[in-house]
Amino acid sequence: MSSKKLFGTAGVRGRYLREVSPEVFLYLSATIATYFKARRSVVGGDGRLTTPVLKSSVVTGLLASGSEVIDVGLVPLPVLAWSTRFLRGDLGIYVTASHNPPQDNGLKAFYGNGMEILEEDELKIEELYVGRGWVLADWDATGSYASAAHVVSEYIEELLSRLGPVDKGGRVRVLIDTANGAASLVTPKVLTELGAQVITLNSNIDGRFPGRHPEPRPDVLEPLLPIARELRVDAFLAHDGDGDRLAVLSPAKGFIKQDRIIALLAKEMLSVRGGTVVVSIDVGNAVRDVVEEAGGKLAITKLGATHTGMLKYPDVVMTAEPWKFIDPGWGPWVDGVYQAAMLTKLMIERKSSIDELLKEIPDYPQARVSVEVPKELKEEVYECLTTKLLEWRTPDSEILTIDGLRVNYVDRSWLLVRKSGTEPKIRIYGESLTYDDLKNKVNTLITEASKVLKKHGLGEVRIDGKIIP
Amino acid sequence: MSSKKLFGTAGVRGRYLREVSPEVFLYLSATIATYFKARRSVVGGDGRLTTPVLKSSVVTGLLASGSEVIDVGLVPLPVLAWSTRFLRGDLGIYVTASHNPPQDNGLKAFYGNGMEILEEDELKIEELYVGRGWVLADWDATGSYASAAHVVSEYIEELLSRLGPVDKGGRVRVLIDTANGAASLVTPKVLTELGAQVITLNSNIDGRFPGRHPEPRPDVLEPLLPIARELRVDAFLAHDGDGDRLAVLSPAKGFIKQDRIIALLAKEMLSVRGGTVVVSIDVGNAVRDVVEEAGGKLAITKLGATHTGMLKYPDVVMTAEPWKFIDPGWGPWVDGVYQAAMLTKLMIERKSSIDELLKEIPDYPQARVSVEVPKELKEEVYECLTTKLLEWRTPDSEILTIDGLRVNYVDRSWLLVRKSGTEPKIRIYGESLTYDDLKNKVNTLITEASKVLKKHGLGEVRIDGKIIP
Amino acid sequence: MSSKKLFGTAGVRGRYLREVSPEVFLYLSATIATYFKARRSVVGGDGRLTTPVLKSSVVTGLLASGSEVIDVGLVPLPVLAWSTRFLRGDLGIYVTASHNPPQDNGLKAFYGNGMEILEEDELKIEELYVGRGWVLADWDATGSYASAAHVVSEYIEELLSRLGPVDKGGRVRVLIDTANGAASLVTPKVLTELGAQVITLNSNIDGRFPGRHPEPRPDVLEPLLPIARELRVDAFLAHDGDGDRLAVLSPAKGFIKQDRIIALLAKEMLSVRGGTVVVSIDVGNAVRDVVEEAGGKLAITKLGATHTGMLKYPDVVMTAEPWKFIDPGWGPWVDGVYQAAMLTKLMIERKSSIDELLKEIPDYPQARVSVEVPKELKEEVYECLTTKLLEWRTPDSEILTIDGLRVNYVDRSWLLVRKSGTEPKIRIYGESLTYDDLKNKVNTLITEASKVLKKHGLGEVRIDGKIIP
Amino acid sequence: MSSKKLFGTAGVRGRYLREVSPEVFLYLSATIATYFKARRSVVGGDGRLTTPVLKSSVVTGLLASGSEVIDVGLVPLPVLAWSTRFLRGDLGIYVTASHNPPQDNGLKAFYGNGMEILEEDELKIEELYVGRGWVLADWDATGSYASAAHVVSEYIEELLSRLGPVDKGGRVRVLIDTANGAASLVTPKVLTELGAQVITLNSNIDGRFPGRHPEPRPDVLEPLLPIARELRVDAFLAHDGDGDRLAVLSPAKGFIKQDRIIALLAKEMLSVRGGTVVVSIDVGNAVRDVVEEAGGKLAITKLGATHTGMLKYPDVVMTAEPWKFIDPGWGPWVDGVYQAAMLTKLMIERKSSIDELLKEIPDYPQARVSVEVPKELKEEVYECLTTKLLEWRTPDSEILTIDGLRVNYVDRSWLLVRKSGTEPKIRIYGESLTYDDLKNKVNTLITEASKVLKKHGLGEVRIDGKIIP
Repeated sequence: MSSKKLFGTAGVRGRYLREVSPEVFLYLSATIATYFKARRSVVGGDGRLTTPVLKSSVVTGLLASGSEVIDVGLVPLPVLAWSTRFLRGDLGIYVTASHNPPQDNGLKAFYGNGMEILEEDELKIEELYVGRGWVLADWDATGSYASAAHVVSEYIEELLSRLGPVDKGGRVRVLIDTANGAASLVTPKVLTELGAQVITLNSNIDGRFPGRHPEPRPDVLEPLLPIARELRVDAFLAHDGDGDRLAVLSPAKGFIKQDRIIALLAKEMLSVRGGTVVVSIDVGNAVRDVVEEAGGKLAITKLGATHTGMLKYPDVVMTAEPWKFIDPGWGPWVDGVYQAAMLTKLMIERKSSIDELLKEIPDYPQARVSVEVPKELKEEVYECLTTKLLEWRTPDSEILTIDGLRVNYVDRSWLLVRKSGTEPKIRIYGESLTYDDLKNKVNTLITEASKVLKKHGLGEVRIDGKIIP
Repeated sequence: MSSKKLFGTAGVRGRYLREVSPEVFLYLSATIATYFKARRSVVGGDGRLTTPVLKSSVVTGLLASGSEVIDVGLVPLPVLAWSTRFLRGDLGIYVTASHNPPQDNGLKAFYGNGMEILEEDELKIEELYVGRGWVLADWDATGSYASAAHVVSEYIEELLSRLGPVDKGGRVRVLIDTANGAASLVTPKVLTELGAQVITLNSNIDGRFPGRHPEPRPDVLEPLLPIARELRVDAFLAHDGDGDRLAVLSPAKGFIKQDRIIALLAKEMLSVRGGTVVVSIDVGNAVRDVVEEAGGKLAITKLGATHTGMLKYPDVVMTAEPWKFIDPGWGPWVDGVYQAAMLTKLMIERKSSIDELLKEIPDYPQARVSVEVPKELKEEVYECLTTKLLEWRTPDSEILTIDGLRVNYVDRSWLLVRKSGTEPKIRIYGESLTYDDLKNKVNTLITEASKVLKKHGLGEVRIDGKIIP
Repeated sequence: MSSKKLFGTAGVRGRYLREVSPEVFLYLSATIATYFKARRSVVGGDGRLTTPVLKSSVVTGLLASGSEVIDVGLVPLPVLAWSTRFLRGDLGIYVTASHNPPQDNGLKAFYGNGMEILEEDELKIEELYVGRGWVLADWDATGSYASAAHVVSEYIEELLSRLGPVDKGGRVRVLIDTANGAASLVTPKVLTELGAQVITLNSNIDGRFPGRHPEPRPDVLEPLLPIARELRVDAFLAHDGDGDRLAVLSPAKGFIKQDRIIALLAKEMLSVRGGTVVVSIDVGNAVRDVVEEAGGKLAITKLGATHTGMLKYPDVVMTAEPWKFIDPGWGPWVDGVYQAAMLTKLMIERKSSIDELLKEIPDYPQARVSVEVPKELKEEVYECLTTKLLEWRTPDSEILTIDGLRVNYVDRSWLLVRKSGTEPKIRIYGESLTYDDLKNKVNTLITEASKVLKKHGLGEVRIDGKIIP
Repeated sequence: MSSKKLFGTAGVRGRYLREVSPEVFLYLSATIATYFKARRSVVGGDGRLTTPVLKSSVVTGLLASGSEVIDVGLVPLPVLAWSTRFLRGDLGIYVTASHNPPQDNGLKAFYGNGMEILEEDELKIEELYVGRGWVLADWDATGSYASAAHVVSEYIEELLSRLGPVDKGGRVRVLIDTANGAASLVTPKVLTELGAQVITLNSNIDGRFPGRHPEPRPDVLEPLLPIARELRVDAFLAHDGDGDRLAVLSPAKGFIKQDRIIALLAKEMLSVRGGTVVVSIDVGNAVRDVVEEAGGKLAITKLGATHTGMLKYPDVVMTAEPWKFIDPGWGPWVDGVYQAAMLTKLMIERKSSIDELLKEIPDYPQARVSVEVPKELKEEVYECLTTKLLEWRTPDSEILTIDGLRVNYVDRSWLLVRKSGTEPKIRIYGESLTYDDLKNKVNTLITEASKVLKKHGLGEVRIDGKIIP
């Protein structure tokens, strides 16, 4: 089986002019359109400095392949996905490098219904591209171009109409940091229309990301907590650069574990309609508790593939992995704008701050830690750690091998060890009932990894991430 | 002489559907175009919720009068003024209520060179309007309509090219609060292009002004100082809703007196070329000191009329009144974007924070206080206070009656008493060498006003504003 | 019952600044939006010189009423109707005076599904307007505006996809005169895409209609026949100014009776699916013959109301009146572009000229004549002529009183007498098996009318129109 | 010296996907921008089917090189040239293959002032391109993109204002065939605004050129003369596909020799201001007569290089070669729209048809004939023919070797023989006082060419073109 070079775990992404260039995108787009026999393509992009030139090369490739192009311009990713469906495209292409540094760029492709294309199609497209298998249309079959600037207001209107009338009794103040990204044009407006009082940080679009790193991680966002406190808001929300992801912070308590946000959303969704909640393998017991209590079913997929999971469960009510939420009733794409709108609607209707909303959601100590290992030792360390995980199991432990190795122990604690797909790292995830127990286990695993490195004459192991009580 | 009803001190402004309505703006625009025989008009507006409907009625009136219309859309006021000149219009109209509450709206008109129209023309337009003197063109002479969305990037490019290459050695961090207004699209981009690291607050456009009141007053902005401190910026800048005004705050020291900003700009401008600095009557000794030291001349105009003053002095190098700055070499309009750019450029080139830039600028205790008086007593209170001012004078005192009464005393302290043009208030402005002296004088004046009110059986006098050490 | 003043038989129409003005359209649009509680309106207009100013006033009125507006710009009427449905509007408004002289303008309103509004709603809107019953939204509920320039290509694509793949074997040359109107942007492109070789006359858009009168009447178009012959085309098609109507000419034989075009279309439609063909009262035996032969049913409505008829017959397959064709499967609006496309497709697929296509369609002598009578004698003349019609009947004659009086005689000849709704005229329509018989009957009627006029001391009767063999 | 491969006599032109492709245009545009260090480029294109994809690739190349791009969309060539100056571009690029068949496309580049770039720059650009010498900007220096759709109305307004108010007394009817090209949007409107009654043929834009071949040659246009006669117009004008060229026909007399149109324009221009008229080598005595009579000077350049000539004569009043006219006071580009406007203005102001205008312009028998010769015999035939030309000369004959060999004989007859730059042809041009004399001379030359071919065993010589009395 061929392995992907261009496409990573989330579309194509890389350094401008080194991995991604106008020429590459011209022919890659032509290849994608050839592969899907796309008669009409919808194109958009984020606010990066290289997005205009790369979007222009994507448009060129699509027109050259014979596809009509409708250009929706600078919009967040969910709006592009939605527009592909709304404008009846056969194909959507979004130019973005999500939360990568500003020097990078990339693209993501979407089916006509707005779902990101599956890995199996990425593999075939890549093969076609490598074999220069794109087909350029002759002069009388090249595509025509139109721009459609009104889609943002259409998206907002449809979203508001789906969320229904909101009882505006509750006065909710929200701080949202849109990461100098494309969601700046959409999320603040949506939350305001819902009835929230919205204060924005970094909602000028700037491809250099002067405000903060576009990845909405705890270490990036927690320094801004004093601002949220100063402004006395009920919640502090933060997007990544293209608006598919959302992080949520409590002004008082800081970064909220993604598991608890997923659990809150699952509880809400299941209150409307029963069915399956699809989550990635690194999601923990808060979600499990809530889903079980609500009478729903939980299904597990590997990371970056919840949309694939969605196809397997006809009764799916939502899918999620940390930061990424899909409501299939709205559309099969990761939509951070929609997620922000749902949470804000809940706060308004229940006259609650985010802390009050989360009172009812369990909170377990959780670890998300990465161990840096040289490429050639990755396998050996992985073997060593998973052996440890299996040692700890008892007969009733549950073993999952969907993505790395996860062991669910009988006391409801669990550990997951995965090789990173993009970096020279082994990732360790886990939960326990007590912080001390979790710390002991994770430290043991780190020590094991350390031993392997030392055996090969290497220095101290480097780790990042943390264990949150 | 007829007195204005529609036009106030800054164009037309009022409550939507009460004072300003689509029908009024339709015919008022037709009147303005009739008056100026405008063949080509340039139209734009701010981000208020009623701006689309009112801009549409302005466009209707202009087309009906036979003028061609070029619509530059949602832009800050300075961009509309600049576009009128750039697009060779005979007339510019900008829909805005500046920093009024969101329920209000209004319009400002500009000559082809970008200067706000003079009061004498406003009076004649109003007379024509009241007499229904507009002329609607016949069917074959109505105007044609085009939109010109690219002007913002043209404006930015010309502005950057005027400010010249900036030595980007110095790393300057700036927080800018664009008041949910139209400057959100321009100022952060300009400052970034100059080389600053820009963090924005409230730079999502929202006509409800959810972030803060759109008037950049000390009491509105000082509560945000902790945020500026938290972000460790070198300056905190703030616009009003349409971007003609700029306030400047020091994260450490708070709101900076507008006089000192004007003085800083005057010093810079006079270092390039000598000439006259035109300021409004309420500007104080910091500016006087700096202009004298730099060998420039100082000219005084009434409030809201520095552009009129500009016409009188062929060697004018700049005009300013608090919050409002015009560089005639750039264009004869109040330009808060340009002002922000100049200050940021100075910080970058001198590797200085705003505090360091201001070290060299004098700082005098200053009062800006208003006394509320019933309309019918306005004249009596005014008489009483000005009598006091004159009592305090010595033979060498200088008396100015350009706008109210200002007395410059021999110790360089001064006091100004004016009747407000728009509110039932008497305004008191002044400076002294010591805070105590200033406080005594102002309190004496307040007491005098109080006496008048009591004489007429009214309660305690209400004041606002403050005396800053 | 109130009688309409603003709305005539086809929307509002009149002389610019006399009957229709920016102010009238501002409040009329607000009234229409108020009446329909329109949340989203789609707006467009034809190429008249006053369309920009009137469209701008319509937009103003809609925004003021609180409706969101999507502006599709300069498009033919069928594209506006289609766009209202496509863009999910609650209301569509098209600024046009159809084939009136260039000094006139007007508007037509459409339901969300693209159907022109019914007379009953026009009456209520007019009443509301006269009573100043429009409601203007408050500042925070006024509408937002967006333009959507890409709808033309969407319309073309959907139309082509509905007509299906065309066997491009046959080489067909078509001359189309688009009357300097908005269909210039659409019909030539559609016919070319279908595979025809298209030559255009007057397809530059010009609101002065320099090329020819915008009404596609025989006397306007027949002078251009030598051009069609010179260019050796297979058909000569001609639109009115806004593209809802289509006239068809044979280069060899001249203007083709509208009945025969309707019959040709009915034959085609019924070959796909049986059902009812709804036509106006002035349609004759060619259509009847064809519909009967094809096993369809024929339903009759009054003039200008075939869309009303459409609602009554659930099995309707098409509706038509002279020049105006609706395929309900495509959409409930009169669509001259679609009609031109259907005829061209037939020519291409059957490798036939228009003359060859019509070989199979019956051709009866036909009269369409108007008698000018003073307003006060209209009733008397009408009485006199209808008495004559009834005199001629035999027991088996069929009498129709849907719109005027029509008598179908047993030899299949028929006569229809109507009072014109818009002009001081009595209209006579009819068919016979022979030209002589028809001429005799019509001349008898004219003589009768003449007598009435003479009785009242008036001169010779004036007639226009003609009797075609 | 390197010889050009990409650039021909009029920019780059060739078959789509064979000679010109998206990839070639991407890098060629980047090369041109690199060469000119273009900071701002203005881009437009004609109505060909491949223009969207190629324009998109040009935009990509320019953005990638770091140039800002302003896209003026589908406009005729003169509007792009004008816009480059108007929008203050450093560079203009227009995608067009002028009158080539629809399968072809190409591009032309313009300096900031709107002049087509000179051959010397084309050579250097080509060299740079061949050596892959383009420079792609890094991520933070790529260009930004804006579209500017309003330039057409600006162009029309400036053109009308330059031509000044026209006395609209005369009623002039003009038929204009805009060749399904981009001038359809401009020329009819301009002529109408001047006051002409305009009827258009083929003014729907269609890149397949269904109406007629886009080259406005006599054999293409004369078949349409009956239409012009039928419509009783005063002149029949015709553009090529991109609107730089204009042909003029008399409804009565047919195609008018380009010399006489040039002479008419020269007479008009010289009546305003004296100076030099620059024409190409193939221009004859009608122009010479008129220029001499008007006291002007005549300068001769090689074909396709009148703009180069323009730079040499500071007192230039106009330049022209057949079909192509430049008024340097308007701008240094070939402008068929402006030429049509000037001629129409003359007709209106003098109340004259084109025939009446030309009464005063001399009319000499003229030959424009091409002899097809195999590439390897081109030199031999050329030698043979030029020998003949020199044989015929007398001592006072004038010999010009600017472009081929031209001999001006003492009786004012002249002959020019040139090798075609693009085809395997020898071109013969000439004039005599009598048709018979001219025919004899040209036939002698053809016979000479024939002899050479026969000597080499080849068949009869093939010729095209004609000798017009």
